[in-house]
Amino acid sequence: MTLPLSPLAERLRIRSGDFAGQTAGLAPGYVQGNIAILPADYANEFLRFCQANPKPCPLLAIGEPGEPMLPGLGEDVDIRTDVPRYRVFRDGVLENEPTDIREIWRDDLVTFVIGCSFSFEEALIADGIPLRHVQMNRNVAMYRTSIPCRPAGRFSGTMVVSMRPLKAADAIRAVQITSRFPNVHGAPVHLGRPDLIGITDLARPDFGEAVPVEADELPVFWACGVTPQVAIANARPPLAITHLGGSMLITDLVNSRLAML
Amino acid sequence: MTLPLSPLAERLRIRSGDFAGQTAGLAPGYVQGNIAILPADYANEFLRFCQANPKPCPLLAIGEPGEPMLPGLGEDVDIRTDVPRYRVFRDGVLENEPTDIREIWRDDLVTFVIGCSFSFEEALIADGIPLRHVQMNRNVAMYRTSIPCRPAGRFSGTMVVSMRPLKAADAIRAVQITSRFPNVHGAPVHLGRPDLIGITDLARPDFGEAVPVEADELPVFWACGVTPQVAIANARPPLAITHLGGSMLITDLVNSRLAML
Repeated sequence: MTLPLSPLAERLRIRSGDFAGQTAGLAPGYVQGNIAILPADYANEFLRFCQANPKPCPLLAIGEPGEPMLPGLGEDVDIRTDVPRYRVFRDGVLENEPTDIREIWRDDLVTFVIGCSFSFEEALIADGIPLRHVQMNRNVAMYRTSIPCRPAGRFSGTMVVSMRPLKAADAIRAVQITSRFPNVHGAPVHLGRPDLIGITDLARPDFGEAVPVEADELPVFWACGVTPQVAIANARPPLAITHLGGSMLITDLVNSRLAML
Repeated sequence: MTLPLSPLAERLRIRSGDFAGQTAGLAPGYVQGNIAILPADYANEFLRFCQANPKPCPLLAIGEPGEPMLPGLGEDVDIRTDVPRYRVFRDGVLENEPTDIREIWRDDLVTFVIGCSFSFEEALIADGIPLRHVQMNRNVAMYRTSIPCRPAGRFSGTMVVSMRPLKAADAIRAVQITSRFPNVHGAPVHLGRPDLIGITDLARPDFGEAVPVEADELPVFWACGVTPQVAIANARPPLAITHLGGSMLITDLVNSRLAML
């Protein structure tokens, strides 16, 4: 058995180029974040979008313009090097997926770190609620919905949700547990019939991987941190940098301290 | 518009014989309770049953043996006169439904007051969640289920649940709100498919009145204070006294103070 590394040790391993994969399960107990990096010209509008849509876009931290260090998230956190793999978009078009963005960093870039469901999944598992995608070692299933986000400036779109199949009693308990974590998407936004939120086929997710929903289970849907990526794609800024799905920023924040009570 | 009466004024009106009907909506803001009165010989076992099954049988108060006054529930509360209508069972068989039990009161009778969903319904309505049975002025629909209670001594049975149809987002919010009220049944025990808890036809409740469940709604099920009446019927004590469904004891306790946070 290998002891888990600290968040700092994981970031240094990522920074050095030794690791460029999925971060689920790394540094257990610590918060991981979704990343969006935008030019200052777009950042204020994106901030308003996040504040208007806190369930899919719960803000954990915002960097100062041009400042790659994020001291509020931990020791020596450098957003240019500490994410395993980035996605770079120019005018809304994917350009490449580097492991380091030092060469394209600019003085006007603003970093947004957005809460991720890994934090509440840890609380669900600790409570004894089985999560099928974790058991099957798959990325969670995510779907575009018909639920509109509130637009802000050039940012708009519909909500993306993640889905976890749960028995009814576990779904009720999951509402209780995730309600305590508003900074990582909070309570579900829907449960039961997928068609009521514009999802036509649970077997064909728009992102991630499908998992079976058994006859005695309800699909339970949480607002998802992929939502802001969709809004950014709609806004088509000249430059936007995100993380590759599942390759998150590992912070020094403690998951359990995100609980509001 | 008539101003609502205080809980004490309602109890005095009931005690005088002026009112013997349903108490829903009376003394808004104040806790109403389910009643079970048993001989001391059965009372200890029933207390163990309640403590083993806190969701259907949340105890608000227990009287001293032979003592009809319940000072913990309010001013001058006399359990022999202050319930609008009682049901008297001998050896498990309904004998009559009097409005006063002074003549059959005994020195060995112990009173149990059990939380009632009226308290959390008030919180749901205040939050803007529509409750169909309230809108239709019906008694809530209640069903026997296949969910076993933990037996204690001679008391046993399956859980009775109340059902409220809600849209998914309201169901999620209702889980949050009712979780704050563990002393009045707390969070739902089930939602979605009724057959998974042994209910074959929502249109035919075992107690109360049916309400329609619309296509975009989920049936949401809460543990119900009728459960202890079923357990008492199974135990067949020589004497048992309950309230008539919906004709509750009105207390001086404030609903919002039942919230655990």
